[in-house]
Amino acid sequence: MTADDGPYGLIANAAIAFDGQYIAWVGGNDAVPPQYQNWEVENLPGGLITPALVDCHTHIVYGGNRAVEWEMRLQGASYASIARAGGGILSTVAATRVASEEALINSASVRLDDLIAQGLGAIEIKSGYGLDTQNECKMLRVAKELGRRRDIEVKTSFLGAHALPQEYASKSDAYIDLVVEEMLPTIAEQGLADFCDGFCESIAFSSAQMRKVLQKAKSLGLGLRLHAEQLSNQNGAQMAAELGALSCDHLEYVDADGVKAMAKAGTKAVLLPGAFYFLRETQKPPIALLREHGVGLALASDCNPGSSPLTSLLLTMNMGCTLFGLTPEEALAGLTREAAGALGMQSQWGSIEAGKIANLALWDVDHPAQLAYALGANPHISQLKNGQWVTTS
Amino acid sequence: MTADDGPYGLIANAAIAFDGQYIAWVGGNDAVPPQYQNWEVENLPGGLITPALVDCHTHIVYGGNRAVEWEMRLQGASYASIARAGGGILSTVAATRVASEEALINSASVRLDDLIAQGLGAIEIKSGYGLDTQNECKMLRVAKELGRRRDIEVKTSFLGAHALPQEYASKSDAYIDLVVEEMLPTIAEQGLADFCDGFCESIAFSSAQMRKVLQKAKSLGLGLRLHAEQLSNQNGAQMAAELGALSCDHLEYVDADGVKAMAKAGTKAVLLPGAFYFLRETQKPPIALLREHGVGLALASDCNPGSSPLTSLLLTMNMGCTLFGLTPEEALAGLTREAAGALGMQSQWGSIEAGKIANLALWDVDHPAQLAYALGANPHISQLKNGQWVTTS
Repeated sequence: MTADDGPYGLIANAAIAFDGQYIAWVGGNDAVPPQYQNWEVENLPGGLITPALVDCHTHIVYGGNRAVEWEMRLQGASYASIARAGGGILSTVAATRVASEEALINSASVRLDDLIAQGLGAIEIKSGYGLDTQNECKMLRVAKELGRRRDIEVKTSFLGAHALPQEYASKSDAYIDLVVEEMLPTIAEQGLADFCDGFCESIAFSSAQMRKVLQKAKSLGLGLRLHAEQLSNQNGAQMAAELGALSCDHLEYVDADGVKAMAKAGTKAVLLPGAFYFLRETQKPPIALLREHGVGLALASDCNPGSSPLTSLLLTMNMGCTLFGLTPEEALAGLTREAAGALGMQSQWGSIEAGKIANLALWDVDHPAQLAYALGANPHISQLKNGQWVTTS
Repeated sequence: MTADDGPYGLIANAAIAFDGQYIAWVGGNDAVPPQYQNWEVENLPGGLITPALVDCHTHIVYGGNRAVEWEMRLQGASYASIARAGGGILSTVAATRVASEEALINSASVRLDDLIAQGLGAIEIKSGYGLDTQNECKMLRVAKELGRRRDIEVKTSFLGAHALPQEYASKSDAYIDLVVEEMLPTIAEQGLADFCDGFCESIAFSSAQMRKVLQKAKSLGLGLRLHAEQLSNQNGAQMAAELGALSCDHLEYVDADGVKAMAKAGTKAVLLPGAFYFLRETQKPPIALLREHGVGLALASDCNPGSSPLTSLLLTMNMGCTLFGLTPEEALAGLTREAAGALGMQSQWGSIEAGKIANLALWDVDHPAQLAYALGANPHISQLKNGQWVTTS
């Protein structure tokens, strides 16, 4: 993933010049410009260097565990009986509300470390299991603290409009008012979120409700993104793209109008094959249509306890290829260049180019296709962080 | 997985007494019999103890790599053009034939270490990429050497009837004669294989051809197993069961007659969801029918370069649940008790019971369903090997 033409922008026998925490130059080892030739040299073992990976859609901060609920489903329990037994997203909300910030940091750190062990350098983390002002703020503070403790780049998304909390049951417009009038101003004032997100779906919030939320967020200076067209077509992608969203995510049911609006606005498609797999979905996002219109295809783990308990970025790549038919090159771009674009970080992240941040991953593979191909292997050797090599796996 | 009733045979606050490398007693910590009460005590941190996992169907010994061929497929190349470019199983045969034993040991060790890092204690390893006497023997020697180097239990299966080598193109009966008259006697004489396996399929060998091979193997004292009904129904399962096979493997297309024959013979069903996933198959094995007839359901990685490059046993469990609808308890039994049965090792392996070998895995989970639930996490802490704790991950 350099600016080079050819598959993967791959450069054989490459050299990279670092100036502090930035890349100064990249190219063939036999073409190093004179001004870098007397710089200190470090020879790496053979292998592949990629940009550090970027996971642009996660819910890694949450309380509790949904393994037993998943087991009940596999034993044949209905959704209704699981809900009666206290399962579903509201069980995660209840567990997240009672958890301390330290407890949330500790449980999320385990998941984050899995991701870092496979080359992660930057991550987006959403709120959305607090569903009241205090607990949404708590989740976002935890997300920021994770970045400090692990010295990685964290971008936060406020996802108050994720689900309807029990205390607002059948008062969904009133809850949206709370999101718009209380949560968003508080979070913006405290500088807790880079982005505003929402779940636009028949089982969550309508396109009209999400428009209110995103418009308010935009007026407060937040970037926009949206869970759109996962289970049905709600025209959320078109609405969000028209408001200038950086990404629309899931998109199994997006139609041509949505894709065209995304292409026009430069909105990235964030594909989440982990949720598609875990929920046993059968309708795939319209990859050919998205390609045809030149919509950038990002990939992400969607790590969350209910629909994608996935903390492997290499498995995310494999699922993107196996389940959605991406090429391995698209899958790697989806976790580097396109993911950086989905987070508005493309000027610093997502490719190995002069001027970008020197956060790279070193892999023990002969060919980049091996990253997406293997299921369960981890060829990650070490990560270059702000110009310094650290072993993370 | 003790002899206890109830889900998973789970015992809370358990104690296990070891006598050398064997389990002497297992039960509640408050019910330790007097004769063990003055034995040396080791308190473990909280967590779950399971039997060491058993992977009962693998092809982890091979030369070369098929990632680029997989990439070509995802880029739209046809099977014919891939074959012309030297791809397919015969590319693995060519790379395996030219590889030294040491090279094969080194490449397989990476895969084996991935499996061991998730609690593997015993593994079946097949030949089948040599397809001549010399190279089939080489693969089996490599498999046995892997067991010595990693101090794990290895069972070997001779899989000469895996594919038709190029030098026998359109002479499939002549190749079967070579397998029966030269390969099998040599391998039996040298004690290189515990079992004989074969690929009974329209693109490989017929049920009549496989019957010849399995009958000969049986006469030489080898145990029997068969790749059966993966892509079509060839009545291989019924044939193999009637010969007393320990397992029939894949089984997507097995019918009621095959299932009944397996039930009658006590033949295990070895389910391979990794290949189902990687090949994007849509016909699932008839789980309900297999359950109804009481056929034991084992699970395995099927680790191989062409159709299942899978080296994660926890992902194998998740795929068994997500793709085939197994319960997490069936998935764990599939990699312990049932897998041990499929390898004829049930007297020593596969459950935590007095008299069995003291090879156990310790996991940092609150509930056994978490093992199959998570995608990409590895909660394995350490393994007890012949009565001694060793850290493997």
